[in-house]
Amino acid sequence: MPQVKVDLGERSYTIVIERGLTAKLGSLVQKALPKARRALIITDTNVAPRYGDQAKASLEAAGIAVHKATVPAGEASKSLAQAYNLYSSCINAGLERSSVIIALGGGVIGDLAGFVAATYLRGIAFVQVPTTLLSQVDSSIGGKTGVDLPQGKNLVGAFHQPQLVVVDLDALSSLPRRELAAGMAEVVKHAVIRDAGFLHYLESTTDQILSLDPSVMGAVVERNCQIKGEVVAADERESGLRAILNFGHTVGHAVEASMGFGGWLHGECVAVGMMAATALATETRILQEPELRARLERLLQRLGLPIRLPQGVNAATLADAMQRDKKVQAGRIHWVLPVRAGEVTVTPNVPWDAVQRALESIRG
Amino acid sequence: MPQVKVDLGERSYTIVIERGLTAKLGSLVQKALPKARRALIITDTNVAPRYGDQAKASLEAAGIAVHKATVPAGEASKSLAQAYNLYSSCINAGLERSSVIIALGGGVIGDLAGFVAATYLRGIAFVQVPTTLLSQVDSSIGGKTGVDLPQGKNLVGAFHQPQLVVVDLDALSSLPRRELAAGMAEVVKHAVIRDAGFLHYLESTTDQILSLDPSVMGAVVERNCQIKGEVVAADERESGLRAILNFGHTVGHAVEASMGFGGWLHGECVAVGMMAATALATETRILQEPELRARLERLLQRLGLPIRLPQGVNAATLADAMQRDKKVQAGRIHWVLPVRAGEVTVTPNVPWDAVQRALESIRG
Repeated sequence: MPQVKVDLGERSYTIVIERGLTAKLGSLVQKALPKARRALIITDTNVAPRYGDQAKASLEAAGIAVHKATVPAGEASKSLAQAYNLYSSCINAGLERSSVIIALGGGVIGDLAGFVAATYLRGIAFVQVPTTLLSQVDSSIGGKTGVDLPQGKNLVGAFHQPQLVVVDLDALSSLPRRELAAGMAEVVKHAVIRDAGFLHYLESTTDQILSLDPSVMGAVVERNCQIKGEVVAADERESGLRAILNFGHTVGHAVEASMGFGGWLHGECVAVGMMAATALATETRILQEPELRARLERLLQRLGLPIRLPQGVNAATLADAMQRDKKVQAGRIHWVLPVRAGEVTVTPNVPWDAVQRALESIRG
Repeated sequence: MPQVKVDLGERSYTIVIERGLTAKLGSLVQKALPKARRALIITDTNVAPRYGDQAKASLEAAGIAVHKATVPAGEASKSLAQAYNLYSSCINAGLERSSVIIALGGGVIGDLAGFVAATYLRGIAFVQVPTTLLSQVDSSIGGKTGVDLPQGKNLVGAFHQPQLVVVDLDALSSLPRRELAAGMAEVVKHAVIRDAGFLHYLESTTDQILSLDPSVMGAVVERNCQIKGEVVAADERESGLRAILNFGHTVGHAVEASMGFGGWLHGECVAVGMMAATALATETRILQEPELRARLERLLQRLGLPIRLPQGVNAATLADAMQRDKKVQAGRIHWVLPVRAGEVTVTPNVPWDAVQRALESIRG
């Protein structure tokens, strides 16, 4: 089966990508973590009815004692209060240091379960079983875990690498169209920052992607995991290169925050955030391929993603949220701006009036 | 000034030990963390009136913007609820990824502030300024951070190394006699597990220790930090050697738990736990120097520490708590037992009836 290795020294792990892998979860976990005798599956109310029993049965068939904890679906579960409940689930499941937490679900579950795994008994093993496109191509890889505070997203968390990521491509078939598009925003992001050829591939296979053609989706997910894995391996703790993964996220996060979390999906905010960054790269003459802006706009639009700011959101409403972003260093925003397809640059030296003009040009 | 280096590769740090260091905190932090522009001092209601202003003034004199958060003194503050409050303090203090959290206080403050530093923005720098003997010789070194759950102590936490440890020996002068004795329990532990010569030194300087002779205390603290630092450096994540630091802690934690947290001080529980482990080493013929038991008993007693279990606590009441200890692996207790002064061994193969006899022999 197709595998992508994320090379992090003693914290290296494998991403396995194929259809029907949920049924093979037990043997995959056993192979990656031969000492694990107990597991806690953390999942949500959307995913549990679809895959919960199959995952549990597969783990039990491999001789692992399994408990399951199901949290309400949605971002509101990414809270310290929910983590507190899950610690009790860990205790009730009899988890020891050699045990494993299985995150079965999308990005919220991966972040939440990963944070619990990072902090229960000062850190136990965890396995990601991402069930949405967004989590398969992005959030399950890289070891970022966390919960939200009322003051902002992901303000509390830890870097904690999974021991294994199991991507079951069959899970995509039950995904709503809007979730699929949101996941594709991060796919496009990975292409723009690292791989011009892959951006062409996405442009030429957009129809197959939208119809979930299995061989195209397999290739899309695999290439993505390679790109993200390479960037993470080069900069595990986000002190340098990894910043390029924030392409589209400075404005994206600000849009999310200004809509009060729950308006647009994360990927939708990232899509308009990429348009903002590309507009800003045009304004500041950092962009060397002016046609990239139109290509990106067309691709995102075909995928069903927004390319303009939400109504009523403008530079003034976004300014405050951008200043509060946790990537701000010494009060300066570090912008990730495209130079050409496959290449971005990070710069803190962007005048605010250029930002205003860029945001004005994509006003909704 | 005397310094001990803890060698952890890129996470290496220095322990600085001297009188009057609180007044030099600012320049020490500036040297260790030249990029830190903002700091949050986390302290408690006992320590804040004594050292809070001095620490704050010293940091401000070094050009660092300082906020201070004071939590109620006592173990009850080592909670997820208190961590939640402190995250808000971090936000209000404007802490960024380059900022630093200063833990000013005893073990509770070090564990709590360290956990907040480990998880706020997925980890920011922190500096330990331990003000009790226990925290100076033990809990401030090694990177273990955490909070308690209602079900047990330290069940939630993270490994997060400080960037600097500042030990102001003057802080010991305000320490109640009972706290001093409790700290000495861990000192004795370090001697028993690694350094027979140091055990002799403690036996021959007990009177000076009890009268807080500055040069003896300086030597005691420094040698301790060396021992603990060496063990931690050899096994940062507690997968092997570091287990020897749990000498006295299997029964010690169980005594703590069975008294409902608040009966005896941690160090007092460790003292009786060391007597339990030594009795068990005698029972199982692992102890090669039978006289160690009497030496240990005499030393602990002179220091004012308990050497018998609390009234009403026996093998039956301790069994359950020991099974729930987070160091239990696959249901087996790993005992740390003395072989001779300066050497211990770790073994999971101890029959329960031997444990019962050992505990019976130290019944209160």
